[in-house]
Amino acid sequence: MDCSNVEIHSISEGYVVFPNVPLMRVEGPIAVVQLLETPLLNLINYASLVATNAARHRFVAGKSKLLLEFGLRRAQGPDGGIGASKYSYMGGFDATSNVAAGKLFGIPLRGTHSHAFVNSFMSPDEITDKLLYNYDGSHACEDFVSLARTWLRKLKRSHVLGGIFGETNQSELAAFTSYALAFPSNFLALVDTYDVVRSGIPNFCAVALALKDLGYKAVGIRLDSGDLAYLSCEARKFFQAIEKEFGVPDFGNTSITASNDLNEVTLDALNKQGHEIDAFGIGTHLVTCYAQPALGAVFKLVEINSQPRIKLSEDVTKVSIPCKKRCYRLYGKEGYSLVDIMIGENETPPKVGERILCRHPFNESKRAYVVPQHVEELLKCFWPGRSGKAREELPPLKLIRERCIKQLDQMRTDHLRRLNPTPYKVSVSAKLYDFIHFLWLNEAPIGELQ
Amino acid sequence: MDCSNVEIHSISEGYVVFPNVPLMRVEGPIAVVQLLETPLLNLINYASLVATNAARHRFVAGKSKLLLEFGLRRAQGPDGGIGASKYSYMGGFDATSNVAAGKLFGIPLRGTHSHAFVNSFMSPDEITDKLLYNYDGSHACEDFVSLARTWLRKLKRSHVLGGIFGETNQSELAAFTSYALAFPSNFLALVDTYDVVRSGIPNFCAVALALKDLGYKAVGIRLDSGDLAYLSCEARKFFQAIEKEFGVPDFGNTSITASNDLNEVTLDALNKQGHEIDAFGIGTHLVTCYAQPALGAVFKLVEINSQPRIKLSEDVTKVSIPCKKRCYRLYGKEGYSLVDIMIGENETPPKVGERILCRHPFNESKRAYVVPQHVEELLKCFWPGRSGKAREELPPLKLIRERCIKQLDQMRTDHLRRLNPTPYKVSVSAKLYDFIHFLWLNEAPIGELQ
Repeated sequence: MDCSNVEIHSISEGYVVFPNVPLMRVEGPIAVVQLLETPLLNLINYASLVATNAARHRFVAGKSKLLLEFGLRRAQGPDGGIGASKYSYMGGFDATSNVAAGKLFGIPLRGTHSHAFVNSFMSPDEITDKLLYNYDGSHACEDFVSLARTWLRKLKRSHVLGGIFGETNQSELAAFTSYALAFPSNFLALVDTYDVVRSGIPNFCAVALALKDLGYKAVGIRLDSGDLAYLSCEARKFFQAIEKEFGVPDFGNTSITASNDLNEVTLDALNKQGHEIDAFGIGTHLVTCYAQPALGAVFKLVEINSQPRIKLSEDVTKVSIPCKKRCYRLYGKEGYSLVDIMIGENETPPKVGERILCRHPFNESKRAYVVPQHVEELLKCFWPGRSGKAREELPPLKLIRERCIKQLDQMRTDHLRRLNPTPYKVSVSAKLYDFIHFLWLNEAPIGELQ
Repeated sequence: MDCSNVEIHSISEGYVVFPNVPLMRVEGPIAVVQLLETPLLNLINYASLVATNAARHRFVAGKSKLLLEFGLRRAQGPDGGIGASKYSYMGGFDATSNVAAGKLFGIPLRGTHSHAFVNSFMSPDEITDKLLYNYDGSHACEDFVSLARTWLRKLKRSHVLGGIFGETNQSELAAFTSYALAFPSNFLALVDTYDVVRSGIPNFCAVALALKDLGYKAVGIRLDSGDLAYLSCEARKFFQAIEKEFGVPDFGNTSITASNDLNEVTLDALNKQGHEIDAFGIGTHLVTCYAQPALGAVFKLVEINSQPRIKLSEDVTKVSIPCKKRCYRLYGKEGYSLVDIMIGENETPPKVGERILCRHPFNESKRAYVVPQHVEELLKCFWPGRSGKAREELPPLKLIRERCIKQLDQMRTDHLRRLNPTPYKVSVSAKLYDFIHFLWLNEAPIGELQ
């Protein structure tokens, strides 16, 4: 397939976009361009959906929380999983548990061990290699297992903590100890295999305190079931009690990660209830977008041989906006974007300081004059074909992610509100408005009622 | 990664399966097996979900309708789309519009042209190559365009049909004529680009009747917007009126395909209302499974070094069933399956004619004696590793699809009911029941309330 006569303009990745403004303008021989329809839609729809979904989760979680993408097991095959990791990161997540995506795109990797890892141990007696050097390598602890057990006994004897738990699960203690021996600087323990409060948290703390004796700082715990708000508060109290009773500075701030079918709604509910969670691992609802599992971007013919074309439909929302168009974003005095406007290719572009009439494409009474303080052309050339135009640069993923976060920061907050957001204005020039409606009446047959 | 010491048993593809019965049993060195967790879950979850979703759509649509998968544009990347096509077919769809999936797996291909194809024409005068040989090649029609136009005039002059439409859209007539010239034996026209009743259907019929003069049979129309029930009935009336008025045998049965965000619920509503649709093109809701966008299959450690392991949880539904198990399906006198039962690996398997106690794994009062008329072992060896076991055959996709359809036919209908289906019984042997609960009490710490 020869795409040398194809020219593609597109809105840059990471931009905030609105309905009816074309994401992409594809020009070229019709047969070639038609063959590009499905691949382009396939690549754009899911990517845009999951980046948007990630941004929505970030919006609810707030900027201070760590957001981790944990969705590979539930994505549509390996390729779906890789795409989910890439576009979740672009939309504002901090890291992924998908190692392949980390390697391919340089996304930070974060994860914990599995329940199966905990289950695979029977008792700490199984651990044969018990030696652990302290953080600066100056000294070796010959029996780290005993050190952890000693700490567990101390916790149990404590007046404050001892009442909370009795015998903790020994396979869990063995798993945590073994994990800490292997990754003393990355000790993040999954604490809900048997019982969070009575076993997981005390076992974690015993191992974390043993690590602390050797100069290491444990990362924290992960909760994967139960009442996450309650359990996170209980864990925080336990950590703070240890900080106080044993004089361990900063132990109260040990990180708490939560996972288990989280989504926008549960994040919002957790925020309202109050919790002590520092990081969220989000999988299923992020990569499969339960709230809206598909984005409905479509590909429409708008002009052929310099003749504008319109696609009518029994559904008015499916009517296409004809003509080869240029698209601009107009910014106001306060730096926020005011409106997007589409104009015919040969019309005069909007200019800073010059008043322009922006019309709703389909509703004749919705109009506004705009005097832009800044004008940004949205469609940039990413595939010049033989046109000789300069090709827009493709920045690395990290920079696109930063652009996306910056774009969202520059939006007026009422547009971003979860419930009943103010609609953002998408408009056409007066000339294009007239032309759309001329073409519409021209193509639509007149009914005959009898 | 060396999997020669790994052994995998699995339920055969296309089988009906139930919660708690393992889909797969993976044995081998723990580090290797642990690395297989995410790939296996990624490959199984989506595949099972979409095959199930396809089967549910088939169940609602009924056996006589043609079901076409149209989801590539909305899947999670190219790989997600290929998977969607493959597993929709397995679950009972008839064909796909995904050409790559057709090539890879031999799935029948079906599709129509796009709206953009219709839009790309201005008028029939644009068509330069108007010659069409008749079906048996014995004679050439020099001007097929005129033949179609003549038929359109005849339709308009008809007393019965003429009142329905006035001037039809000429770009649409041009597109249909051109399509028919290229694919005279596969003429399936998308009729909603401008107006279904006033333009699309009359234009289609004119071209179909012209084709008929040359010995071809048009395939039919596709509706992609509007009130599908109403429009399909209007189309059917139009076709039947032509059959009657112009004496065209079978023209009344011209096929009607519908698409546009169809799903189980809309299929059900269409059935209740009454419609004349013969084939459904289903995309978004099939491949992204709006009703449940992800299947939650998980991977659990159940035994290590011959020691059974259990995973407890704050959520009882997340408690795993320990031990290396064998799984059987027991059939009753009427040929329906009665119950699935899991037993420990070394227990005596259930036998035909012998009474066996089947217990609910977690609810002590739910028990039943079963005398099976037929016993089927569910987990078969698909990766023998070095065990020397025979490897189960992997039949071609078409046979797996037939197996799936047969399996569903053999289910009791009350289990398949959409609303409040009778739960299918999944059980464990008495011995395994006792062991689960012994292990559970053994691992769970006892609470201390103060």
